[in-house]
Amino acid sequence: MRITVIGLGLIGGSVAKDLRRVKFAHHLVGVDVDQRHTREALQLSIVDEILPMKEAVMNTDLVIIAIPVDKTLEVLPQVLSAINEGTTVIDMGSTKRMIVENVKNHPRRRNYIPAHPMSGTEFSGPEAAIERLFEGKIVIICDHQETGPQHLALAEKMFHILRMEIAYMTSDEQDHSTAFISHLPHAAAFALANAVQSKEEGDIIFDLASGGFRSTVRLAKSSVSMWQPIFLQNSDYMVESLNVYLKHLEEFRDSIKNNNPDHLEKLILSANRIKGILDGESASLVKEEERNVKLYTK
Amino acid sequence: MRITVIGLGLIGGSVAKDLRRVKFAHHLVGVDVDQRHTREALQLSIVDEILPMKEAVMNTDLVIIAIPVDKTLEVLPQVLSAINEGTTVIDMGSTKRMIVENVKNHPRRRNYIPAHPMSGTEFSGPEAAIERLFEGKIVIICDHQETGPQHLALAEKMFHILRMEIAYMTSDEQDHSTAFISHLPHAAAFALANAVQSKEEGDIIFDLASGGFRSTVRLAKSSVSMWQPIFLQNSDYMVESLNVYLKHLEEFRDSIKNNNPDHLEKLILSANRIKGILDGESASLVKEEERNVKLYTK
Repeated sequence: MRITVIGLGLIGGSVAKDLRRVKFAHHLVGVDVDQRHTREALQLSIVDEILPMKEAVMNTDLVIIAIPVDKTLEVLPQVLSAINEGTTVIDMGSTKRMIVENVKNHPRRRNYIPAHPMSGTEFSGPEAAIERLFEGKIVIICDHQETGPQHLALAEKMFHILRMEIAYMTSDEQDHSTAFISHLPHAAAFALANAVQSKEEGDIIFDLASGGFRSTVRLAKSSVSMWQPIFLQNSDYMVESLNVYLKHLEEFRDSIKNNNPDHLEKLILSANRIKGILDGESASLVKEEERNVKLYTK
Repeated sequence: MRITVIGLGLIGGSVAKDLRRVKFAHHLVGVDVDQRHTREALQLSIVDEILPMKEAVMNTDLVIIAIPVDKTLEVLPQVLSAINEGTTVIDMGSTKRMIVENVKNHPRRRNYIPAHPMSGTEFSGPEAAIERLFEGKIVIICDHQETGPQHLALAEKMFHILRMEIAYMTSDEQDHSTAFISHLPHAAAFALANAVQSKEEGDIIFDLASGGFRSTVRLAKSSVSMWQPIFLQNSDYMVESLNVYLKHLEEFRDSIKNNNPDHLEKLILSANRIKGILDGESASLVKEEERNVKLYTK
């Protein structure tokens, strides 16, 4: 199969590597506005050739779009207008409502699958691309009724080959859920990095940085070109999730300020429950029949 | 050397393991109020024998206290009152002002070194104890002028043997700095865990939990018996650090709410600087001569 990857960063590069490894892709065409990315992607044999976008999507079986969500807003309609009738298009971005709304009346809307793989690292660019990045992770497919069955089947086959579990939801549900589980932790890490850097005695503080601090602010290293448009495209749900977080932080602060050991203990014990929930996850993935109907069921 | 470890959890157990491995300890006595801990510590050969506290500290060269900071407040004066003239006492807790203030007039104050090793994991108990937990990490020694030179020298020797870097500061400086670099990230993680759990569609959200979410909330698994008293003993600086964090989070939210792409970009780029600071740390540790005079210089 001939596959075109638009955006040769961490996600696009990692998808290309896996699809070549398992021979799902026989010819890989790359598109990227960044000359350094295209050069690296060729050097690392992530793609076989680099072409201008229109040419790259015109005669291909599958187009994978893995670029910042503000760029997807512009590029997706151009791609849909340039492809052949049989070509499938998957977008891998982190927000969906605005992007889907923007192409809802496009004549090739049924060729398109809005998808969000819940995987990534704080690194970016083709050199950050790794094999098996997606294995065991969840991918959200949105509004699957709006996609033609053959295109949906090809996308599902690709995600199964990447060894991902598929969750089906509406664009609205996806943007709401990921605001809490992905976008909020990033905002929390960015603000924590800024809070600690604002301290005068910065040098001393950072010499003391322990593993705990490092893991909590890890996401604060994430790329601005990817995250700024995510926050703005998902602004209503981001503001909601940040307000919920602010409320919980204020409650935590007040229990310390008012020297209320019982309430502070209650808050910590409640937070501790996250352990059981996270550690139990892989078990719950096995028992597919017991799962929430909304998830994994079309 | 005969060493007594009070508190056989992650820190106490890990110190005991390392000091035995390098033959700094020839006989290790353990003390713990938790019967499960004493049983496990004996089974795992972390200590040679378990004794009641008074007996355990009466004829020993070095006492290491590694228990929750509210317990240290009670136990430290009892230990200082029970030891021989030549015995050295090190406390390994995360807060210092209140504990130091509480023994400032004790006749054995000069036998005591208030120390804070900046290492740990989200796990607890003797079974969580691991070798080389402290290697390459920083330990803060507080108010070293208040300690007798022989006792200080023995503590420094022990931390060098554990392959730690020593930072010297006042109890006040240590409580202020660790409020930002250690206690605040824990509070942020506890509140984030509670915020996300408060969402109605909890099941779906947690199925989507990715690596980014997991690393950001990792500290929310930390033990309540350790952390509740840390927050309360360091309450003024905790409230300060939480207020700084709240301010930065509100600024982040408002830049999204007011659709201000330039300001949001500025906030993310500023947070990104944490990368250079954290990645540069090991390099800065090498060039000891260039370091801030306050740190590493008595």
